[in-house]
Amino acid sequence: MHAEDSKKTLYVVGIGPGGRDQMTIRADRVLRECSVIVGYPVYLNLVREDYPKARFLSTPMRQERERCLMALKAAAQGERTAVICSGDSGIYGMAGLTLELAGEFPEVEVSVIPGVTAAVGGAAVLGAPIGHDFAVISLSDLLTPRETIEKRLRAAGEGDFIVCLYNPASRNRSGYLEWACRILMEYKDSGTVCGLIRQIGRQGEEAQILSLSELRHAQADMFTTVIIGNKSTREERGRMVTPRGYTNG
Amino acid sequence: MHAEDSKKTLYVVGIGPGGRDQMTIRADRVLRECSVIVGYPVYLNLVREDYPKARFLSTPMRQERERCLMALKAAAQGERTAVICSGDSGIYGMAGLTLELAGEFPEVEVSVIPGVTAAVGGAAVLGAPIGHDFAVISLSDLLTPRETIEKRLRAAGEGDFIVCLYNPASRNRSGYLEWACRILMEYKDSGTVCGLIRQIGRQGEEAQILSLSELRHAQADMFTTVIIGNKSTREERGRMVTPRGYTNG
Repeated sequence: MHAEDSKKTLYVVGIGPGGRDQMTIRADRVLRECSVIVGYPVYLNLVREDYPKARFLSTPMRQERERCLMALKAAAQGERTAVICSGDSGIYGMAGLTLELAGEFPEVEVSVIPGVTAAVGGAAVLGAPIGHDFAVISLSDLLTPRETIEKRLRAAGEGDFIVCLYNPASRNRSGYLEWACRILMEYKDSGTVCGLIRQIGRQGEEAQILSLSELRHAQADMFTTVIIGNKSTREERGRMVTPRGYTNG
Repeated sequence: MHAEDSKKTLYVVGIGPGGRDQMTIRADRVLRECSVIVGYPVYLNLVREDYPKARFLSTPMRQERERCLMALKAAAQGERTAVICSGDSGIYGMAGLTLELAGEFPEVEVSVIPGVTAAVGGAAVLGAPIGHDFAVISLSDLLTPRETIEKRLRAAGEGDFIVCLYNPASRNRSGYLEWACRILMEYKDSGTVCGLIRQIGRQGEEAQILSLSELRHAQADMFTTVIIGNKSTREERGRMVTPRGYTNG
């Protein structure tokens, strides 16, 4: 399934949560060899200077389908092409859509290059909050019915999972984080240790540790990742830590 | 919280699921600057040749506490020290334990460097199976009561999460994967598309796509990661894909 030497390969590359140094050595090597790099404009700007030989193509936000087709066409024309995604390429990323659309381009092989997703990058900034079983849930109801999101929040609460929330808010959606916190407070103590990270690994990075009841009223935007602890999560000298149990054993 | 220039810093570094090219550029830079690298022998061997200037220290398996203390002591003595973990440093990794034990070494700052965790690396090999909400659950009952694991499996089933299983088996534990599949089959269709990856990014890498009822009888070991789809997951030309919904919209 690895075809980094094939002529007509489209790479779907996760560039990690921040700038170039948060991507893997493999992702960097792949991008260096590409003549076309496709992505959402904000992410292209993060890497543009690092790959001066590539042509950069983009489509506006939400036009993910057009972006994938643009990349598949470039690859089919023999360009060494990559689609880049913030964080990982598969987690709410472009890998799935690219693989779905690739059926129309049988000559193109799709190679998925993983990256550090926001929950993992954000966790490292906070300390070690996801040291045990966790659930990742997107609060975006653009493609998922709100009842499905609520069902998953309740299931994650029921199972005492650590919960990582993606897309806690956007320009057109406010109040979703408060809604999610209220649901989780039916299962988790209001004092549960939580963390909030903005602009992971980028200029303006901010991290905050707070209780679940405080999180309910916190400000979030589309560059925010939220981590809600399980019942063992605690604050240790300013870091958020969920133990696996070693120190108890 | 970033103190890569501080004199007494202990780095807890996730090296990704495979060899050196699956680690981030930042992780590689940190390891290059270290005089002492501490880790489980199997992982040290993966990177030993890449950092010829470092001294390598280890303790046997399960002696994680001793390994962290060894690293904290080296850092306290002024050695530029890293503890390395396979995959990410925080997800079932050493970051939490290190932060817990660091209280005895107030002069040492702990810096957590994230990495690509097995679920993310394995997903990329399979295609794009974790394109939507997912839960990560370890089947190891070494530090977690089996009832807690069962509760989480049931909650993940109830919420129709994609489920990533870590530690599906070990030398002393067999039958756990079958047990987990049987529980999940109370919530998920027996034909649910699943994937199994061994030795991600290493020599002998193997990936397999199979149904949940087939997975029940599959062979797994401590180097295997398992991904169980949600009700939308499907196989597309040999790849495992969970759509976010774009092509339906």
